[in-house]
Amino acid sequence: MPDWGAHLSEMRQRAPLVHNITNYVAMNVMANVLLAAGASPAMVHAVEEAAEFTPLAGALTINIGTPSGPWVAAMEASAQAAQAAGLPWVLDPVAVGATAFRREIGARLLALGPAAIRGNASEILALSGAAAQGKGADSADPVAAAEEAARALACSTGAVVAVTGPVDYVTDGARGWRVANGHPAMPRVTALGCSLTGLVGAFLAGAEDRATATVAALAYFGLAGERAGETAAGPGSFQVALLDALATITPDALTAGARVQAA
Amino acid sequence: MPDWGAHLSEMRQRAPLVHNITNYVAMNVMANVLLAAGASPAMVHAVEEAAEFTPLAGALTINIGTPSGPWVAAMEASAQAAQAAGLPWVLDPVAVGATAFRREIGARLLALGPAAIRGNASEILALSGAAAQGKGADSADPVAAAEEAARALACSTGAVVAVTGPVDYVTDGARGWRVANGHPAMPRVTALGCSLTGLVGAFLAGAEDRATATVAALAYFGLAGERAGETAAGPGSFQVALLDALATITPDALTAGARVQAA
Amino acid sequence: MPDWGAHLSEMRQRAPLVHNITNYVAMNVMANVLLAAGASPAMVHAVEEAAEFTPLAGALTINIGTPSGPWVAAMEASAQAAQAAGLPWVLDPVAVGATAFRREIGARLLALGPAAIRGNASEILALSGAAAQGKGADSADPVAAAEEAARALACSTGAVVAVTGPVDYVTDGARGWRVANGHPAMPRVTALGCSLTGLVGAFLAGAEDRATATVAALAYFGLAGERAGETAAGPGSFQVALLDALATITPDALTAGARVQAA
Repeated sequence: MPDWGAHLSEMRQRAPLVHNITNYVAMNVMANVLLAAGASPAMVHAVEEAAEFTPLAGALTINIGTPSGPWVAAMEASAQAAQAAGLPWVLDPVAVGATAFRREIGARLLALGPAAIRGNASEILALSGAAAQGKGADSADPVAAAEEAARALACSTGAVVAVTGPVDYVTDGARGWRVANGHPAMPRVTALGCSLTGLVGAFLAGAEDRATATVAALAYFGLAGERAGETAAGPGSFQVALLDALATITPDALTAGARVQAA
Repeated sequence: MPDWGAHLSEMRQRAPLVHNITNYVAMNVMANVLLAAGASPAMVHAVEEAAEFTPLAGALTINIGTPSGPWVAAMEASAQAAQAAGLPWVLDPVAVGATAFRREIGARLLALGPAAIRGNASEILALSGAAAQGKGADSADPVAAAEEAARALACSTGAVVAVTGPVDYVTDGARGWRVANGHPAMPRVTALGCSLTGLVGAFLAGAEDRATATVAALAYFGLAGERAGETAAGPGSFQVALLDALATITPDALTAGARVQAA
Repeated sequence: MPDWGAHLSEMRQRAPLVHNITNYVAMNVMANVLLAAGASPAMVHAVEEAAEFTPLAGALTINIGTPSGPWVAAMEASAQAAQAAGLPWVLDPVAVGATAFRREIGARLLALGPAAIRGNASEILALSGAAAQGKGADSADPVAAAEEAARALACSTGAVVAVTGPVDYVTDGARGWRVANGHPAMPRVTALGCSLTGLVGAFLAGAEDRATATVAALAYFGLAGERAGETAAGPGSFQVALLDALATITPDALTAGARVQAA
């Protein structure tokens, strides 16, 4: 059994500053998820400063959930700054298939060398150019339907691709994993997928193996969801308990609780 | 006793995608309220895509709580797209009387045919052109003072008008209702009125009778507040319990607990 | 022992409308903190209306956590309107040393006469022109390292300067205080410092002695953190309990629980 908890332990030791350009709905939750996990979040989106700020961080994440012209300019400038500095950056292509604007943004960002891409099945299908069903932020396709597209996307871009859902699928093109951790209440709380993208960024900061670091981030978040589900009485108390669990889970608990299989 | 729970049941069966252009303070809470209730939220505000996105949804809501030039352009484009597609859209005229900018935005949006308008008494008075007292997001006028203005506004625009407060008043110009559900802690949590506007949108998506659907949404939200008030120790735990209650309340419980009277 | 609770009592009696131009991460939490405490928040940032709105409020707060060109224009217009109306306004120079953009914004706002400045040690050092270590929103300098800079800043600007950390330091240039209230979990929840800035604004609205009003706001917030820490199981439940405590703490409890020393 691989030592998934080692990734959590290393992340907490590095306590990386993670630069996030994310959507308005997710900002607060994502910051709290990163703080609870042991990382340090920074939200910086102005084109006047975004690219200057990026190299101060250990990783960058970009989420297109509520895009606009000026923000897209900052996204591109920061992604280029991350590339230039050798920093990993993570792409979260929210609802990328929904409009022409998002499809164009997705394509432009994809060309800037993300280290990892995290989305639901509909988003990964749409980003890879395949037909997808999703309209909003929710997926209308099962994870399994996007596995082939995920592998192709990983091969063509060099990124780790994570398709999240009831059972997540992660691939770097050559290797693959399924992560079964999680809880059915998670889609009933907004911005948890977006927040997970921030965690992937935190785990990638300084990681040697980006694929297993991504798997560890997903297992950790899913395990926190399982813990939260044990006590929550609904989506409100679930979100509270999730943040508590993220802060409480130890590396040993993650190693013991991760439900990961090679695929 | 009308079957108010039937509106909740139908909304959950349709699980509508609701497109919201709302303020920064409310976005996260509103998304969580819609998810807890059983709907699917989408926040899309860029003028490059807003009008393209609107017809994918079952309803649109527009809230002017933190307006700016580019957002107002997207609000108008989406409202026009909703009109063209025959989709109901809901106007939330936050603090519409406070500045010249808001008064102008309110008037322009009012001309685009909202299916429903939800505001506090000061906002409904200001939107209807009457003198109002409110400065910020809180009302300084009692609900009763806005009933006549609400009826006039409903008659002149064809919209259902909901004046919310300790006892809400809803009218379509011909009919009227008072909704007594609610809890005194609700004004101590930010963005609950804005979130209720999202719920009204969800209940209107596909509804045959928009006035009774609006009444049902108000009674449901107020009943959830009553449930939350039974256990909450303050405004923090109240918000958590409110989300839990929204997910837990059944259609039968709503029919039994709705405190609605014709007025 | 000074009657710190009197400041809380007076604030609740005035229930001031506080106009905040703050960052996207903080808006919702700050609004809830102000409501829980007994004040009324308003977030208004469009340059078309910000300066018109400011004089309706009892105080203004400006936070540069997620700045952009149009928002900075509104910040300057509102600060000027506050100056013209004789209203106190509070500056929160988030990460002011991180980029050239922030350094310029900080200098421009500092010239517009803030009544109070609240930041962590790195931010106060950077704002005063001294060398600072912080990169993101977290401080990398101890409070003690910024005391001299705080006094110099207070003398040169006329503002009350509050350096917050494990033990806060407040000075008006002539007098000084240390506030030991607080809890180690507070930095693990995002936007609490930003929210405290809102509270300082609420306490300054109508206050005769701005320095002691600032001290009282810090002691009150720290005491609420101590209360929250007694029951919280992690950062999620801590934030919930903090809001509950803010609503529950009485003026007498604040007078009894404030841990303030002249310095």
